[in-house]
Parts: sequence; C-alpha cells; structure tokens
Amino acid sequence: MIRVVLDVMGGDRAPCHEIEGALLAVSELDIELTLVGPESRIRDELRRRGQRSNRRVEVLHAPEVITMDDPVIPAIRRKRNSSIIVGLHHVQQGKAQAFISAGNTGAVMAAAKMILKTPPAIDRPALATILPTLTGRGVVLVDVGANAECRPTHLLQFAIMGNIYARMILGLRSPRVALMSIGEEEVKGNDLTREAYKLLERSDLNFVGNIEGRNIYTGEVDVIVCDGFTGNVILKTSEGVFEMLVAGIRQELMKSVQTKVGAFLSRPAFETFRRRFDWSEFGGAPLLGVKEVCVICHGRSNARAIRNAIRVAKELCERRVVEKIEHEIARFEREHAKAIR
Amino acid sequence: MIRVVLDVMGGDRAPCHEIEGALLAVSELDIELTLVGPESRIRDELRRRGQRSNRRVEVLHAPEVITMDDPVIPAIRRKRNSSIIVGLHHVQQGKAQAFISAGNTGAVMAAAKMILKTPPAIDRPALATILPTLTGRGVVLVDVGANAECRPTHLLQFAIMGNIYARMILGLRSPRVALMSIGEEEVKGNDLTREAYKLLERSDLNFVGNIEGRNIYTGEVDVIVCDGFTGNVILKTSEGVFEMLVAGIRQELMKSVQTKVGAFLSRPAFETFRRRFDWSEFGGAPLLGVKEVCVICHGRSNARAIRNAIRVAKELCERRVVEKIEHEIARFEREHAKAIR
Repeated sequence: MIRVVLDVMGGDRAPCHEIEGALLAVSELDIELTLVGPESRIRDELRRRGQRSNRRVEVLHAPEVITMDDPVIPAIRRKRNSSIIVGLHHVQQGKAQAFISAGNTGAVMAAAKMILKTPPAIDRPALATILPTLTGRGVVLVDVGANAECRPTHLLQFAIMGNIYARMILGLRSPRVALMSIGEEEVKGNDLTREAYKLLERSDLNFVGNIEGRNIYTGEVDVIVCDGFTGNVILKTSEGVFEMLVAGIRQELMKSVQTKVGAFLSRPAFETFRRRFDWSEFGGAPLLGVKEVCVICHGRSNARAIRNAIRVAKELCERRVVEKIEHEIARFEREHAKAIR
Repeated sequence: MIRVVLDVMGGDRAPCHEIEGALLAVSELDIELTLVGPESRIRDELRRRGQRSNRRVEVLHAPEVITMDDPVIPAIRRKRNSSIIVGLHHVQQGKAQAFISAGNTGAVMAAAKMILKTPPAIDRPALATILPTLTGRGVVLVDVGANAECRPTHLLQFAIMGNIYARMILGLRSPRVALMSIGEEEVKGNDLTREAYKLLERSDLNFVGNIEGRNIYTGEVDVIVCDGFTGNVILKTSEGVFEMLVAGIRQELMKSVQTKVGAFLSRPAFETFRRRFDWSEFGGAPLLGVKEVCVICHGRSNARAIRNAIRVAKELCERRVVEKIEHEIARFEREHAKAIR
C-alpha cells in the first residue's frame, strides 16, 4: 500500500484541517499515512477525534515548525527538526512514497529540491496545478511559482512534465498543450515566449499555439505552460476575481427583501456552482521534476482539500508519474539534443 | 471646447457602436467630435439615426481600415489612409486634442508612438487601465500591454505616470502605488521586480510595496505597476474568470424551477452588480507617455464604453495629464538622475 507523509503543521488552521483531512483520507481511500509534526500535539488531536490508534496512521515526531513568515533559506538550513525537513527525509529514505504540505510554499519547494533531488535530465522542478474549466474538465497550469525566472528550455521541460501529468491524472491520451502569451500569433508575447514557441513547435507534443488569459477557463486546452512568475500571478488573480465577485454579488443580494428571497431560492445553484469551481476539489499542486512525489497545498486548505491532495499524491505514486517524467525528458533530450539546449 | 477624434472603424461592431457612443457623448458631454473613417458610411449611419447635421460632429474621410488581424508594422506603414493613421495625424497637427480607437491595439499603440511621439524624458509609453474594486473606487493598472519587455526604470516611469493619472482621474491626493509581484516581501518576485522595488522605494511616490494578484480587487491600493506582459495577462485572465463565473452561475440557475424563480427575483441585484463591475463603465485605456491624449478601447466596446472613453479623453485633456506627466518625469529625472538611469 502507498504510504504518504503529511506535514500537519502546514496550513493556516494547522493541525486541525490536516488531521481531519488525514482521517477522511484513511476512511475513504486505500492509503497509509505518516503524520509528521509535534508528536504530543498530533496524539492529542487524534484522541480528541476518538482515534486512539489506527494501524494505517503513524506519527513521526518533528518538534520544530517552519512558519509562513520564515525566510526560506535560513529556515530550511536551521530548522532541521521541522515537520517539512523531517518529513521529506522520511520519503527520501524510502520509508514512504510521497510528501504533502500546506506550509510555506517556498520552503517546501526549496527543501524538496535539496532533499529529494532532481534527476539529471531535468533542469528545474515546476509547480503544476489543475484549474477548473467551464467544460468540467480541468486544465493543468505549470509553472505556478517554482521558477520566477525561466529560459525557453525550461518552458519546454514544463510542457513535457505537464503533458505527462495531464495524461496520468486527467486521463487524456494526447493533451492539447498551449503557451501562455498575450496574443495568439507566434510573434506575440515577450522574448521568452517567442523562443519557447519555436521549441514547443518542434517538439512531439500536441502543441496548439499561444493562449491568452481570457481562454484559460474555457476548457479549450489541457496544459498551459508559463514561467512561475506569470503562473503565480494567474493563480492569485483568478482567486482575487473569484472572491471579489462572490463578495460583490452577496452585497447586492442583501440589499432588498426581494433579492434576499431570490438568493434563498437560488442557493442550491450557488452551492453546486461553488463545488464545481472550488479549487480545493482539485487537491494541491505537485512539484514535478523531483525524484519523489511532493504535493503542495494552499495555506487555506480545508480538510476536504487535504484529503484530495492525499488522493492526488496516491495517484501520482500509482501511475509512476515521477519515473515517467524522468524517462520522457531523458528520451526527449537524447532525440532532440539540439532543440532543447 | 475640447475636440476628440474618434476612429469609427475600430471595434468588433464598427461603426455602429462607435457612432452610437459618439451621439451619446455629444448629447451628454460638453465636447466636439471628429469621426474618422469612410465618409459615406459614416454619413449613412448618422442619417439612419436622424443626425443629418450636428454642428458639434464633423466627419474626416479615411477610406482604409486596419483590421484586428493586420500585422502591425506593415499595416501602419502601408495603410496611410486608414482611420487610425489619418485620425492620429489630425491630432498631431493640432486640429483636435485627443484620439480614441477600439481598433487593433498593437497598431494604435505603434502608430501613436510614431505620429504623436514621446517626450524626451519618457522612455516608453504605457497603457493604463482602471479596474473596479470592492470598495467602489477604481485601481489603475499600468502597463497592460504596450511593453512586453521592461527594464526596472520603465516600471518606475510607469509608476510616475500612473500616479498622475490616479491623481487627475480618480481625484486622489496621494495614490498608494504598489508593485505587482508574487509575494509581499521585497526579495520576492523576479529580477525585474526586485530591481524596480528598490527604485520605487527611493522615489517620492507613496510606494506601499509589493501586491499579489489576490489583492488587486480589494481596493487596498490605487496604482499597480507591472510590465506589459504581466499586465495584459492580469487583464485578460480577470475577464476570463469573470466570464466563466457568469456562465457557470447561469448554467446552475437554469437547472431547476426553484432556482429559476430565485434567479428571476435576484435579477435586480445581478444587474446592479454587473454595472458596478462592468469594465466598460471605466472607459478605455489611455496610452500614457505620448505627446497628445490617446485612448484605446476594448474591441468589444459597446456605445456606453465608447461614450465613457470620450469622457475620459476629455478629462485627460482638461486636466492636462500629458503635460503633467512630461513635467513630472523630467523633474524626477533631474532630481534623481542616478536613481532612474
């Protein structure tokens, strides 16, 4: 059975949401979990939920915590007994197959690169996320924040990794891969995207050209590639617009009795809608291109989001995504040595 | 009285929306208009609307049209009799004070730089837009697409221009200026934003630090500065999320009788909401940093959006924004010669 290490000290409501998510996961999925964090605190939380012992849940003691405000490099150097560092070493030593954290994203990424390592064929691990679309099928966006500065070959590697992720997790045979830009023609964009366009065009990916922000959510492509700065801006801007619209509609609905009644009657539609477009349903962002499975969750993840991240980690292990990415990039490099260097 | 040249051949529904917007503007605002485009077509449209002669509306003949698909540089070189080129020359010759187009954005920007010219102190004109926020006050985003590649000094100049725009158009005394990045700390972001941060910090702007995508729409800052690639991605991603959410909510509301009734009763709230967050209400994006007023509208602009762009162009002229920007950047350059070069 797959064993996943879950950092319980990550999210904004740690360790509650993590432990609830973990218990949801063991009750619903065929999975074993190692909860990493301050042992007495974890045992207290488990006990409070009537889980004195569960043979599929073990506890790994890590007394220190890397907080959201800790500067990344000093934190991962000095806090050797933090849940992130202890948990990643556990996976690296082969005692578990995957690591999940909702903690300081920068620290998890840096520590994962350092401890889990990157295969020789891969230049830069990248953070991939699945966004909801109008057609109901998700779209993979990569990189959403691991690499603020990128060269064109990095974007090509992100495309290869995103392509495998979409094949394995979304179950697509030949995902449509697009390049994020600010115009559909090849000549549009910046220096990075124009060069990356040429590499993608010569690759054997199902490259469909540039895509603009307006078409991210239409479901017309399956993988969108960009540098980590742009990807992170897209992700956070989308969240911001979503929150503004929800808050704005609520303000307006509360202004009269008629619209309040309307809101009450409409509620089931809004609830279905929220579930359809709830990013937590998609379950965390895997750091693709490290030697083991590592999934990073939003700091605001609730129990459901944690449970879904555990499901994604399990699927990534079962479908051998890490090995497939390594193999595919190495093959690509051999065959197109000139194209990607 | 201010005279504005309006390109009637710009938008997706040209010249209908342009001419309707123009007639709205002359009936509601103290303004004179020059409609530029194929003369007989414009006169037909005016006649259809019972406007055989209006002493505040004149027609300037331009038989050619630069389409959305025309490649920018060849188009502005070859189509010398297009509405964009003829209209801009009219303004450059002092026969009118501002130019407005909903046409090919790349062509309008390139032609405006070439014909209207940039003052010596300004390196790069930038496109500024006003986005709606939850507090009801707009936020200026600059650059939204004029410069896909930027140096840190460009971002500083965009900040100075955006600051004047916010003071003059939003009526703020000391706009809070933020730098778009992917983390709030100074060290977060990419090479461009880290360098720009230092310049902004040393400037005499009311610089409040980095802002993330999630906080664009909260109303916590007044001016957001970024390179044109990032700004364009933000603008179009926001539109995409907005459209996805509206379409998604509508789909869900139509699924049952109860929610249909709810939707009917809630309609006034949705309508107010749409008006509050309707980008067309804010009226076009000025190209800041050219020697005359030039406002670029969305290709999908309706008559209301055109009318509002005319209002914005009028205000930019009356408040002498072009002169103030030139003066402010020249002053800044003298005083901080080292900081911005």
